[in-house]
Amino acid sequence: MKFKMYHNNFNVLDLEKSLAFYEEALDLKVVREIDDPEGSYKLRFLANDESSHQLELTWLRDRKEPYDLGDNEFHLAFQTDDYEAAHAKHKEMGVICYENTAMGIYFICDPDGYWLEIVPRR
Amino acid sequence: MKFKMYHNNFNVLDLEKSLAFYEEALDLKVVREIDDPEGSYKLRFLANDESSHQLELTWLRDRKEPYDLGDNEFHLAFQTDDYEAAHAKHKEMGVICYENTAMGIYFICDPDGYWLEIVPRR
Repeated sequence: MKFKMYHNNFNVLDLEKSLAFYEEALDLKVVREIDDPEGSYKLRFLANDESSHQLELTWLRDRKEPYDLGDNEFHLAFQTDDYEAAHAKHKEMGVICYENTAMGIYFICDPDGYWLEIVPRR
Repeated sequence: MKFKMYHNNFNVLDLEKSLAFYEEALDLKVVREIDDPEGSYKLRFLANDESSHQLELTWLRDRKEPYDLGDNEFHLAFQTDDYEAAHAKHKEMGVICYENTAMGIYFICDPDGYWLEIVPRR
């Protein structure tokens, strides 16, 4: 019996805003869509050519208030082949929310506040 | 500039308990360890042969109370090649926390309450 890490899910409040963010910031595009026929939810699976892993974004029609992300530090990490260029791009976008210069990493926050770690490919 | 989804992080309260859970439930083993020389944190990166994606577990010495996971539905999903056997195993372990029989998926909860989705390989 095998288990393959396959995707993550983040619930998001403004689907179009999140899709634009992930495409601009991390080069992720929609590869699969599922819409509830009655309109109560939309699922979008994002990916790029670098990995088989996907990021699922879930949008719920009846959710109006911001998501409570709790107090913990769960996050999704990305390796980049050009750390300096990535850092400059994210700084220009204004989405960097934490830097750890000693460890040589930083975090960006998506529109709902989910933390995304950026690490250089070593 | 390329971005590769690389790992997830979950903060956990009882590292040994979590390591045992992930090995038994999802066949994930430690592939990399980082320990703070002063003992304030331990990082364990888990993986198996099915994917390049890793699960990072972070343990903080000074964290005593349970993590607040918020109200949203973030989760990490696994594809399995033997859904029936996986379901029987997780039922026996007593870790199934939600089933969606209409969609043919279920969720297990890890010792800290993080949701892990199990889906059949289609």
